[in-house]
This record gives sequence, C-alpha cells and structure tokens, in this order.
Amino acid sequence: MDKISAFAPATVANVACGFDVLGFALDYPGDEVTLVRRNDNKIIIADISGDNNLLPKEVEKNTVSLVIMEYLKHLGISDLGLDIHLKKQMPLKSGMGSSAASSVVGVFALNEMLGHPLQTIELLPFVMKGEALACGVAHADNVAPALLGGFVLIRDHKSLDIIQLPTPDELWCTVIHPEIEVQTKDARSILRKRLAMQEAVAQSANLGGLISGLYTEDYDLIGRSLVDVIVEPQRSILIPGFQDVKKASLSSGALGCSISGSGPSIFALSKGRDIAQKTGEMMGKVFGNLDVGYQLFTSKVNKVGPKILDK
Amino acid sequence: MDKISAFAPATVANVACGFDVLGFALDYPGDEVTLVRRNDNKIIIADISGDNNLLPKEVEKNTVSLVIMEYLKHLGISDLGLDIHLKKQMPLKSGMGSSAASSVVGVFALNEMLGHPLQTIELLPFVMKGEALACGVAHADNVAPALLGGFVLIRDHKSLDIIQLPTPDELWCTVIHPEIEVQTKDARSILRKRLAMQEAVAQSANLGGLISGLYTEDYDLIGRSLVDVIVEPQRSILIPGFQDVKKASLSSGALGCSISGSGPSIFALSKGRDIAQKTGEMMGKVFGNLDVGYQLFTSKVNKVGPKILDK
Repeated sequence: MDKISAFAPATVANVACGFDVLGFALDYPGDEVTLVRRNDNKIIIADISGDNNLLPKEVEKNTVSLVIMEYLKHLGISDLGLDIHLKKQMPLKSGMGSSAASSVVGVFALNEMLGHPLQTIELLPFVMKGEALACGVAHADNVAPALLGGFVLIRDHKSLDIIQLPTPDELWCTVIHPEIEVQTKDARSILRKRLAMQEAVAQSANLGGLISGLYTEDYDLIGRSLVDVIVEPQRSILIPGFQDVKKASLSSGALGCSISGSGPSIFALSKGRDIAQKTGEMMGKVFGNLDVGYQLFTSKVNKVGPKILDK
Repeated sequence: MDKISAFAPATVANVACGFDVLGFALDYPGDEVTLVRRNDNKIIIADISGDNNLLPKEVEKNTVSLVIMEYLKHLGISDLGLDIHLKKQMPLKSGMGSSAASSVVGVFALNEMLGHPLQTIELLPFVMKGEALACGVAHADNVAPALLGGFVLIRDHKSLDIIQLPTPDELWCTVIHPEIEVQTKDARSILRKRLAMQEAVAQSANLGGLISGLYTEDYDLIGRSLVDVIVEPQRSILIPGFQDVKKASLSSGALGCSISGSGPSIFALSKGRDIAQKTGEMMGKVFGNLDVGYQLFTSKVNKVGPKILDK
C-alpha cells in the first residue's frame, strides 16, 4: 500500500464532572490525513490546510510526524519515507481536542498501511507524546477517546489504565466554538490548586452517576450527573456569555452543558438529534446577540474512533 | 399479622475510593428485630440484646423506634402499639453500619406487617432520620445499602438521588473488627478540610473505575480501583496495625483493602469465598500478634438488603 487516508475525531474532555479523567469522541468534526510513500526514508510534512498557517511543518515539532516517528522508532523501521498531507477540519485551541486528533490520525493511518503491527490501543503511548508536544503536558482525556471512540475513563494516567465506557445510542452532542481564544495554560493556571473535601465528594458522586447512566442508558441520570462544581465555576469566567449559553441549552432540552476541555468551546449532550440541533440554534443565538462569531457542530457521540477513508 | 421478625445487614461505607458516596451490604452479620403488636397504642423497646447495654431504650432516642414513629406519623397512624425486641448481632461503633442496620430493620419489618403501604425505597427518608439521631449527621452511604442491598451510590445527599449498582456474583467481603474504639466524630475531625486538586482527580478516577468494574464484572479493575488516596492515609493512623493488615490481605489475594466506614473495622474484597477466608485468617494473625482482640466476618456481598425472617 503506497497511499492511505484516515480521519480522527474531535473530542470533548472533562465532560462536566470528569476533570482530567473523562472524554468522548465526536463523529464530526475531525482531522484528515493522507500518507503517501516516498522512495527515500524521509518523513515530510508535505502540506497542511485549515490551520491558518499556525501549525509547524518541522517534523520534530509537528504532532502528526512526531507521533509517526516515535511509532517507527518503536518498530525499528528506519527505511520508510512518507509525505504527510494534513487537513485540519476543526478550530485549533478550541477545547475540542484538535491536537489529539492530529496525534491520532497519522499513526492510525500508518499502522493500517503497515498491516497492523500494533493493536489500536497499543498506539496510545506514541499518541501521548504528540499530545505532550502540543500541550506541554500529556493528558489522555482527549487522545484516548480520539483513538478508541466513545466515552473513555482514564483511571490512571501514569500506567495509562484506560477504561472504555458504553455509549447510549441516542446520545448526541452539540459543540459551539466561540471565536475567542483561551490558552490551555491560562485555563489551567486559573484553577485553584486546592479544594474543599465537600466539593471533591460532590464531583466524584456526579462522575459515578454519569458512568452509571452510561452503562444503564439512563438519560435522566446522565443529565442529573452532568454537573461540575469545581472547574466550570472557575473557568467559565474566561468565556463571555457562558451562563446564558448554558441556560439556552438546558431550556432547549439538553441533558447537560459545560465547558469542552479547557474551552472556550461549550458542549451540550442531548437525547436525540432534534434536541441537539435545537440546542445548537439556541446556543448560537446567544453568541450572535453578543456579536461573537462561532462555529457550531452537532454530532452523535462517535463509538468507533478514527477510521480509514481511502487506501 | 401480630408478630414479625426481620434482619437488616451490616454495611461497608466509603469502599476505599467512594468517601461519603458509596457503600455495600453484607449477608452477614446484621441486626434482627421482632415486632409484636400491643393492645394499646404505645411503642416500646421491650428488650435489646447484644449491645452491652449501650443503646438507649427511650423510644425518642433509640433509632429503631424513632424511625418507626416517623414512619407511622407519615402514614397518619396513631393507634398502633408495638413491643420492639432488638437483637444486635454486630459490634457497635465498629464502622460496619450498626446504627444503619438498626434504623432499617424495624421500619422494614413494620412496613411488611402493614402490607407494604410504602415501597422499600420510600422508607429511606425515615431511615435517614435514625442515622442522623445515631451519628449526628445523616449520611446515606450506610443506610441506603442496608435498605436496598448491593452496592449503592449516593449521587446527591440532599435530594437522596440513590443509584443501585450491580454486584458481581463472586464478590466476597472480609471484615475484621479490632476491639479498639474509634469515635466517628474523631474519625471525621482528623480529616483535612481541603485537599489538592490532583488528589480529588485521582480519587474520582478510581471511583469511576470501581463502578465500571462492577458493571462489567471486571475483578481486576475493581482491585486496581480500590485505592483511597485521601481518607485512608489520614484515618489509618487511628488503627494500630492497619498497614500490616492491609499488606496481609493483599498478599492473600484480596482485590483491595481499606477502612470500613469510619473504622476501626477494615474490609477486604475478594473474588470467591476461598480467598476471602484466607484473607480473614491472615488479617486476624496480624491483630493476634499485636494482642488486639478482633471479630472476623466473611460474607458475600448482599444483593437483596433486609429480609423477613418470620411472620
């Protein structure tokens, strides 16, 4: 196989009550990559579209190529050359797991091209290195769902103990990305380092409720559990209009609404496409009234992770 | 029906990673009550055995009778008289949910005697009042599993949002009660009021892992998740020999081991009876070597909650 194209999904991390430990994947949007074999042994970023020229083309600094090189090093392959064509199809620095999708998409495509020398889950350590490069810190709550699909719990970051959770069939997600910039580092530094025991207890109870709701397809329980008493109250001040967007989503029938990753995107989960779309319209109106531009995405929760588009 | 007897189980609250939000019930030990109708409308504690004369016999101060009176008041019944005979069959102030079992057993028996005017779950608010009387604070993490059986998550204490979790068939529990006294109030006051965000994140990830393991009957995951990074390190200093008991249980093959409720009892969960019994022997040896008397209980996790013994 000399050419292959693949897609890797956007992801929502934190999911209200699962700060740093929970994420899920979307069917749409996501990144696309096409890998074309070269006759030499060079790995080259041939072109990147959709990034407003923000992403580096140096192979050591680009997440797609870095992950691919780590993977090839692990397999002891030094004679493979690739032209990498990357199509970014989601906003960068949006809290939608853009760097995670890029970290996943290239190595997923290459592993298919080479006939699956590794299982998909075995790609995670390499993908984590891409995330560390892009974000300065390697959290798995975007990359694990981007790689595996569905809801993923990171039980332990050090040992990469990754638990795939079930995804109820009618669960839809609305993500709205307001065109303002929140640096992940700022979103982290604003957080209190310490919290009250009662806050931790309430948060963990909601995480437990959410996970239980996913297993039992109890949409009401999922909704009651989508509560973030710790991070959202602190980070939401970085997002103008957040409270109104949240109110609009809940009054549209969404199960819950919170910040996607470190923001500024805001996600809502709904039962069914109709409510998810209505939710998106109402969220959009709020930003429209504030004269804040936005991009809106409505998608089922993705159960399969990345996929091969063309060989 | 003029006479009825019932049993309500001991419970393990907190369960390592579920401080204040998780508990489960045991098949053994537990409390027994016999209610006998009187010809007048008096509620009387006729006798209590097994409590070393520690429990009050005044009906306003005894959890069994208080809960019964709250239940009767709710139903608008004022002409019912009862002699209450209570057999305590587990150590008091042990961290095994003794007060919860007493709160549950009487009202459960009476609700049966009266032909189920309320569903079992509807007894919870009354039972909570008994727990508040006994412990000064109404937590549901003992009373809810004592009433409902199995593992129970308290998603929200205020609204009593109670989630019944599945219990894997081969899950056995060993509880050892060292004959030392730890006041619940002391066990609470020793706890730091604030904690690091990282501790809260790790704890909630383990709770998520444990709940996932219960749904998928993944005993290894249950074991990996039975980790308490917050409360156990603080409270275990109140229990001489705790670290050695824990080591002994884990080296016997237990999945995990931590403090039962606020202690001083220590619980271990194991896959299968054999490991649970071996675990108990090894835990007992540690306390034996320390010249600390102990009581040992080995039981399946109770899936059904209280039960009627005799009508």
